[in-house]
Amino acid sequence: MTNRDACAARDAADPLAPLRAAFEMPEGCVYLDGNSLGPLPRATPARVAQVVRREWGEGLIGSWNAAGWMAAPFALGDAVAQLVGAGPGEVLVADSTSVNLHKLLGALLGLAPPERRVILSERGNFPTDLYVADGIAAQRGGRLELCAAADISARLGPEVAVLMLTHVDYRTGAMHDMAALTAAAHAAGALVLWDLAHSAGAVPVDLRAAGADAAVGCGYKFLNGGPGAPAFLWLHPRHHAAARPGIQGWLGHARPFDFAEAYEPAPGIARFLSGTPSPLAMAALAEGLRIFAEAEPLGGMAAIRAKSLALTGLFMELVEARCAGHGLRLVTPADPARRGSQVCLARDEGAYAIVQALIARGVIGDFRAPDILRFGITPLHTRFVDVWDAVEALRAVLEGGEWREERFARRGLVT
Amino acid sequence: MTNRDACAARDAADPLAPLRAAFEMPEGCVYLDGNSLGPLPRATPARVAQVVRREWGEGLIGSWNAAGWMAAPFALGDAVAQLVGAGPGEVLVADSTSVNLHKLLGALLGLAPPERRVILSERGNFPTDLYVADGIAAQRGGRLELCAAADISARLGPEVAVLMLTHVDYRTGAMHDMAALTAAAHAAGALVLWDLAHSAGAVPVDLRAAGADAAVGCGYKFLNGGPGAPAFLWLHPRHHAAARPGIQGWLGHARPFDFAEAYEPAPGIARFLSGTPSPLAMAALAEGLRIFAEAEPLGGMAAIRAKSLALTGLFMELVEARCAGHGLRLVTPADPARRGSQVCLARDEGAYAIVQALIARGVIGDFRAPDILRFGITPLHTRFVDVWDAVEALRAVLEGGEWREERFARRGLVT
Repeated sequence: MTNRDACAARDAADPLAPLRAAFEMPEGCVYLDGNSLGPLPRATPARVAQVVRREWGEGLIGSWNAAGWMAAPFALGDAVAQLVGAGPGEVLVADSTSVNLHKLLGALLGLAPPERRVILSERGNFPTDLYVADGIAAQRGGRLELCAAADISARLGPEVAVLMLTHVDYRTGAMHDMAALTAAAHAAGALVLWDLAHSAGAVPVDLRAAGADAAVGCGYKFLNGGPGAPAFLWLHPRHHAAARPGIQGWLGHARPFDFAEAYEPAPGIARFLSGTPSPLAMAALAEGLRIFAEAEPLGGMAAIRAKSLALTGLFMELVEARCAGHGLRLVTPADPARRGSQVCLARDEGAYAIVQALIARGVIGDFRAPDILRFGITPLHTRFVDVWDAVEALRAVLEGGEWREERFARRGLVT
Repeated sequence: MTNRDACAARDAADPLAPLRAAFEMPEGCVYLDGNSLGPLPRATPARVAQVVRREWGEGLIGSWNAAGWMAAPFALGDAVAQLVGAGPGEVLVADSTSVNLHKLLGALLGLAPPERRVILSERGNFPTDLYVADGIAAQRGGRLELCAAADISARLGPEVAVLMLTHVDYRTGAMHDMAALTAAAHAAGALVLWDLAHSAGAVPVDLRAAGADAAVGCGYKFLNGGPGAPAFLWLHPRHHAAARPGIQGWLGHARPFDFAEAYEPAPGIARFLSGTPSPLAMAALAEGLRIFAEAEPLGGMAAIRAKSLALTGLFMELVEARCAGHGLRLVTPADPARRGSQVCLARDEGAYAIVQALIARGVIGDFRAPDILRFGITPLHTRFVDVWDAVEALRAVLEGGEWREERFARRGLVT
């Protein structure tokens, strides 16, 4: 049985511990919501201010070239590529996850034979994935079909063009076997797109080794790029030449500054650019990604994964030991091979109010409808004592019953 | 015949002159490229820093509601609406112009009867408009057709679903008669989408009075929202209930935080939201838009238009008087009713190099392929003496022939 001192000792021995200083952690709270919005990197304010004052204010349009604004989608893409097992020149940072998904699904439907018009996905996949897929499938004479995770292989029939899955489930933290599902889909003649929103920067991903076809992911969660940060997309190079993006924009043209009337896609991943990127938002994401470069000499993604599993394992162990009898059910897989970087608990009654009561105590997780308490673990800044303190706060909220107070009742918009 | 003192006197009498102090104008230069990238508003750095440090760094996810991040697309949309003759709740600020165009064209093709599959546009329209339209038309079993401006009415046949035009031409500064062309298209059974990239904040626009169906526009030109600023979109309320956005994202859902599997569009324009907006980029655009509110008591858009025509008229007059015999041709219409807020000159030889030589002298305009020198006029900060100085620099460059120097030759990427 562990205690807070033992947790502090684990922090003292943690090779990634110095990285916490790279963030402006909010004072007096335990932040377990880095999978909704990563905290502010310490270097970001000065970098963003530089983009605003110097690059925009003084450099003006010259900064498109001189300050690297035009190159940012590719430069940041290469940094993301290192986190997801992609090669240089294969990842693009641009737009939002929803828009990138639309662009890639459009391309994949174009690559699939015309008799394959179904996008297959999993029940409970993140809503934007389902809505985007439903929309584009209908526009292209097809449809979105959903099934339980266990039924995916069986449902991969001759009508399926694309298997679209989220690698780590936003609500449960369950992680798919990317290589196995990709192989099953390919065997059935389907292409595979992975949403890495809760994976990139949190768990090891090897898109190339898995042989996947396409991927999208989010910049504002584990990559710490700030609210609404640009997202990323990846397409395997074997598809680059034939892919027609779902959106044909001018920055994806082979020679955008020729201002030609006819669309001619740029070589490679660049054709998936559409409109003008935001250098302010790009700069913030660049600072978030820089912390992963700082993690490399400390053990990199292997060390991040080891610490993540240690933290989520500790969280589960403590909940079982110290919160028993309060109606909590563990939703996140106990098997490390199937676990992302979060711990999710379900409770029949009061999940929303319990999360609010925890926030009032300075433990910031979040509620996910209908009954989930979600705690994100970010090894770049989460400490073992944070896990201890969070579970102790949870125990106190449940034992004291404060979550039943009116002030914690659900109302209005919930993010 | 005027002179520099007379120009200075006009500046002294200009009711909008105080607004120049709202910008950090680059020192020692005449900035005539506000229609490519508006200069930095003086209030923007502090506002962006506040979003980064306080709203993100301290407020974290709570800022989605507490700091108005969720509301920004609508609040900024209402500010834009006042500049383009739209009502409150009709304009949304989000994504890029390209992405918004894709979303709206997707909706308009869905609203048009199935036998109408052609998007009609003008030769020489801005490339991203043509590329986006070409892409989505092909995806929906249709095609993009182009014609000369003079032939538009004649080409509005029974196959045309959407007439898509840019109100002010980016290359020539020519302005369409929005009301007349909208009426012609409606009479022929087509819907009309206007691109206001070079209109919003620069010339009077009245979408409602024209009876237009949809519009997009840009945040980083005359609206001064900074590089890659979020763009805007408008759809006439008569179409809101039936419109299916070209991209169905989760923030456009009727109840996004229910995380429901089935897409149900939000009421009104909100359904055209897709992914998560960038509060950093939104804050910068909000500061740009605030200057238009400051212009209201000084005469608002009517005063802006009057000053714009005075400045472009002066520019043309001075070029004719002082740069004659150097092979320049006026491309922008002399008729004020057909003129946007820029002056464009064509020259058979050396247009690119002349623009570079002007930049070396501190006069920043830009080159647009193949042969155009473009000078943007932004009444919020452009002065009459700026026009005088720009034309004098142009005269000096042409008379001295310095543009023939090797250092001004065209090479590489040109923005």
